[in-house]
Amino acid sequence: MITRMSSLFLRTLREDPADAEVPSHKLLVRAGYVRRVAPGIYSWLPLGLRVLRRIEGIVRDEMDSMGAQEIQFPALLPREPYEATNRWTEYGPNLFRLKDRKGGDYLLGPTHEELFALTVKGEYSSYKDYPLSLYQIQTKYRDEARPRAGILRGREFLMKDSYSFDLTDEGLVASYQAHRATYVRIFDRLGLKYVIVKATSGAMGGSASEEFLAEVPIGEDTFVRSTASDYAANVEAVVTPAPPARPLDGLAEAQVHHTPGTPTIDTLVAYLNEAGLGREFTAADTLKNVLLKTRQPGAKEWELLAVGVPGDREVDMKRLEASLEPAEVAVLDEADFARNAFLVKGYIGPRALLDNGVRYLVDPRVVTGTAWVTGADKADHHVIDLVAGRDFTPDGTIEAAEVREGDAAPDGEGTLVAARGIEIGHVFQLGRKYSEALGLTALGADSKPITITMGSYGIGVSRLVAVVAEQTHDASGLVWPRQVAPADVHLVIAGKDDTLREAGERLAQELHGRGLDVLLDDRAAASPGVKFKDAELVGVPTILVVGRGLANGVVEVKDRATGDRAEIAVDQVVDHLVTVVRG
Amino acid sequence: MITRMSSLFLRTLREDPADAEVPSHKLLVRAGYVRRVAPGIYSWLPLGLRVLRRIEGIVRDEMDSMGAQEIQFPALLPREPYEATNRWTEYGPNLFRLKDRKGGDYLLGPTHEELFALTVKGEYSSYKDYPLSLYQIQTKYRDEARPRAGILRGREFLMKDSYSFDLTDEGLVASYQAHRATYVRIFDRLGLKYVIVKATSGAMGGSASEEFLAEVPIGEDTFVRSTASDYAANVEAVVTPAPPARPLDGLAEAQVHHTPGTPTIDTLVAYLNEAGLGREFTAADTLKNVLLKTRQPGAKEWELLAVGVPGDREVDMKRLEASLEPAEVAVLDEADFARNAFLVKGYIGPRALLDNGVRYLVDPRVVTGTAWVTGADKADHHVIDLVAGRDFTPDGTIEAAEVREGDAAPDGEGTLVAARGIEIGHVFQLGRKYSEALGLTALGADSKPITITMGSYGIGVSRLVAVVAEQTHDASGLVWPRQVAPADVHLVIAGKDDTLREAGERLAQELHGRGLDVLLDDRAAASPGVKFKDAELVGVPTILVVGRGLANGVVEVKDRATGDRAEIAVDQVVDHLVTVVRG
Repeated sequence: MITRMSSLFLRTLREDPADAEVPSHKLLVRAGYVRRVAPGIYSWLPLGLRVLRRIEGIVRDEMDSMGAQEIQFPALLPREPYEATNRWTEYGPNLFRLKDRKGGDYLLGPTHEELFALTVKGEYSSYKDYPLSLYQIQTKYRDEARPRAGILRGREFLMKDSYSFDLTDEGLVASYQAHRATYVRIFDRLGLKYVIVKATSGAMGGSASEEFLAEVPIGEDTFVRSTASDYAANVEAVVTPAPPARPLDGLAEAQVHHTPGTPTIDTLVAYLNEAGLGREFTAADTLKNVLLKTRQPGAKEWELLAVGVPGDREVDMKRLEASLEPAEVAVLDEADFARNAFLVKGYIGPRALLDNGVRYLVDPRVVTGTAWVTGADKADHHVIDLVAGRDFTPDGTIEAAEVREGDAAPDGEGTLVAARGIEIGHVFQLGRKYSEALGLTALGADSKPITITMGSYGIGVSRLVAVVAEQTHDASGLVWPRQVAPADVHLVIAGKDDTLREAGERLAQELHGRGLDVLLDDRAAASPGVKFKDAELVGVPTILVVGRGLANGVVEVKDRATGDRAEIAVDQVVDHLVTVVRG
Repeated sequence: MITRMSSLFLRTLREDPADAEVPSHKLLVRAGYVRRVAPGIYSWLPLGLRVLRRIEGIVRDEMDSMGAQEIQFPALLPREPYEATNRWTEYGPNLFRLKDRKGGDYLLGPTHEELFALTVKGEYSSYKDYPLSLYQIQTKYRDEARPRAGILRGREFLMKDSYSFDLTDEGLVASYQAHRATYVRIFDRLGLKYVIVKATSGAMGGSASEEFLAEVPIGEDTFVRSTASDYAANVEAVVTPAPPARPLDGLAEAQVHHTPGTPTIDTLVAYLNEAGLGREFTAADTLKNVLLKTRQPGAKEWELLAVGVPGDREVDMKRLEASLEPAEVAVLDEADFARNAFLVKGYIGPRALLDNGVRYLVDPRVVTGTAWVTGADKADHHVIDLVAGRDFTPDGTIEAAEVREGDAAPDGEGTLVAARGIEIGHVFQLGRKYSEALGLTALGADSKPITITMGSYGIGVSRLVAVVAEQTHDASGLVWPRQVAPADVHLVIAGKDDTLREAGERLAQELHGRGLDVLLDDRAAASPGVKFKDAELVGVPTILVVGRGLANGVVEVKDRATGDRAEIAVDQVVDHLVTVVRG
């Protein structure tokens, strides 16, 4: 195909759009790939649509190869299935809801678990029908509170979502692994730099889950990675390596001290170090007990929960919430403290909690044999050398303390560093939540019904256009990897001479004849300088310049990514470019 | 590609779905191509999606060939552009409207004139940029009052819509003709039987317009065609052939007759024929004057309008409305008659109308020199031999009389017959309505702004799946034309012997190796009878049966459309099928 810039529906912009902050957004608008229609809602212009379709093609190719079958659901969906799974309500304001002319409730699908489950239920009935993997590449809608960064977080976007259906947990694991391997192939083919992080389940309910995060400085998701291994995880999913339990023999007795005016860790540590106790204390020696209340889904009553963490760490509410999911968590109000007089603010210790039946979970570092400075349940008093497993036994451990750079990596290799990424894929063992809610069962060999277990897998296809741009652009513009570029060769006719024009046209035809897609800058009015700038901005991987050198029988071939230039004899350049493009 | 029935997500049904009335709907559901999700909202299962994609591919190929450029707009659109053109209101209940989390008004795009015009306005500014044709293949939404016939009239559907942008009226005509020719190629490639009818403009506003109607007995649109030429038109667009004017010399004088109790054409004709006037009268000799009122858009006042048609024809309100568009039309109420005492019900004649300044339009058959029996503007009186052009001169002609089978075709060849069809395409000279409303202009060579003139062109892509099915099915099932079929060969392993299975598998691999798509019925549990029935239902054009003949070295090749069967030597069948498929 030859695409002529003289008639292509493309106008590049010299200025960044006013609403753009991230590089991919700026460049995709400036290079004429997308245009904003409304917040988080974009149009695809010709070059953008080509990149989108090429990425879509790679995703489809790999999904087909793994044996998943493509179907397509509508985007406009009736309320009922989403009511059955409670997501009509749970989604809250993220869901676009509307009524039809008869007053019926509809929504714009944010994800299609319900429809897939119901459709399989409609077609399949026997255990012999399974396993099954279905997918679609389809437009989705989420009314994001803060649509941002162009197509990176839109409200209308293209997604590949797939679902696996299995009879057994082992089957689900196999389907999950097959999807995971397919995602690795897809993102590798796209040339992306990404990590696979253990993720929590989010609002979906279920068990194992991993996210594919593309590493970019402007990423919304924070994750940690090891300095020494390929361990990577969402902060919510980091498992604190617990030290080994220590022997109790020979540990000092617990002693209550009068510590006036020390309701905070800082005041406490300062007081202790001035008290002349013969040793130095740090915040890490203290055990901070944070009081919260939790409520299980559907329950009316709140329940008290105490979380004990080393005093040098804050409680990370996101980690705490992820650990307690699907229960709700809230902080205590004055009325809660009034109702529970045994809670002495600033001086809460394990004793009062355990004596009064408060559920008490501690950081995994609080192992048997560790000694702590903590509250003595009496104003202005703390206890020193309170030993876990001797003086108190918590109800269990919880991942709630903040994760910090320099923490030991959970796999024992190296330490953690923080990084930022964008979610590009998600694989998720959904389990039986949706099959149970919607009655998806198969008749077993023994004529008994088997509840199907599902997996759910997503790739943000339109988002990938921006993610690839984030990872590959440079100061001059976009730099597409060959496999997704909108053309193979950007041919610039750098001058108005008839000879240049004729040579350019002939080379374009010859390249086309060899099966290459050529973006031909044949604009009569544009100067060579403007054409070069546009070629850098548009980002086709190979730029062929037909210019002054032609008089000496050479043209210039430039690699957009490396900037390498080479003069090639005009009668050899077609062969040369075919080799460059085909590899 | 080899698609195995043993794992394909497909369950055929023996019974017609309860809500289906038309053949394509019944068969597409029974053969497992589509499934209903809500009224007018369908899912595409694997085979259905393949047919849809193949049709989409043909449409895209031809659009690209004509030089139109593909882009893609969102389906979720903000209200403002549709407010600017008044379509937010005009669309009425057909438009799906919704609010986002901030209360902003949005709609699901039923068609995208506004977005295309605004986008071109955003990119282009000079006369040098034009002409331009853009298209998209995109999901559209219309909240039909009566969604019906499966995907034939859905509420969510896939459409190719394109728009041309020209500087001049001549340019628009050229763009229109290019689109029209492209549509002819597309529908020809799909093997459809269709007609191109002159259409009225509908709610779109504008000038020339044609519809492509696929002829099917279950079609919603009535049209007329000539018995002797390829003339075809919507009934609203039929132009009545006017007879030549006749000389006035020697015509009898007009005479008022007392015709008591003759307020209707029937009573009048009966009275005249019994009155012994020396000649026979028919309803066709009478001139019936129908009183209406019209109002221009935006106007407050209604204006009287009289329409004169030969007494043997009714006024066709749809034809009348199409002729008067965009004005509204209403019938007179008693108060209108009371206010206009010169209107003597049942006896209204041209004289009173013209004397009192009522706009008076007549059927094109009422040419100068024709003599009529009509009202004498006095109760129980008619006038005979009132001659057009001598005794009265109407304000003009109007296409309002009903069109009947047997009427002369407007092109002078043959007579009209009625037929039914489904709209599959629409080409439309939109003119400057949208560019004016949205300010789409180009700076001319003389630095003066030129308002762009637009064309709008649509093809119902998902509907075409049903239309092709309507035109090609038979009593046993679907019968796909090769170019859109979900596979090239349906290979039935008709038995459980290992030799049959092995031969079937080997042939499938060989066909696949030759580039053919094979649907392989390798189901172990299904009987040959079930497999044959399913093959007929699914409708792949060529069925290859590996069965008992294999012992004699032959397999059976069946043409799904003609039913022709041939025994072919098993070692020659791959070559044979490649020839059959490639043609």
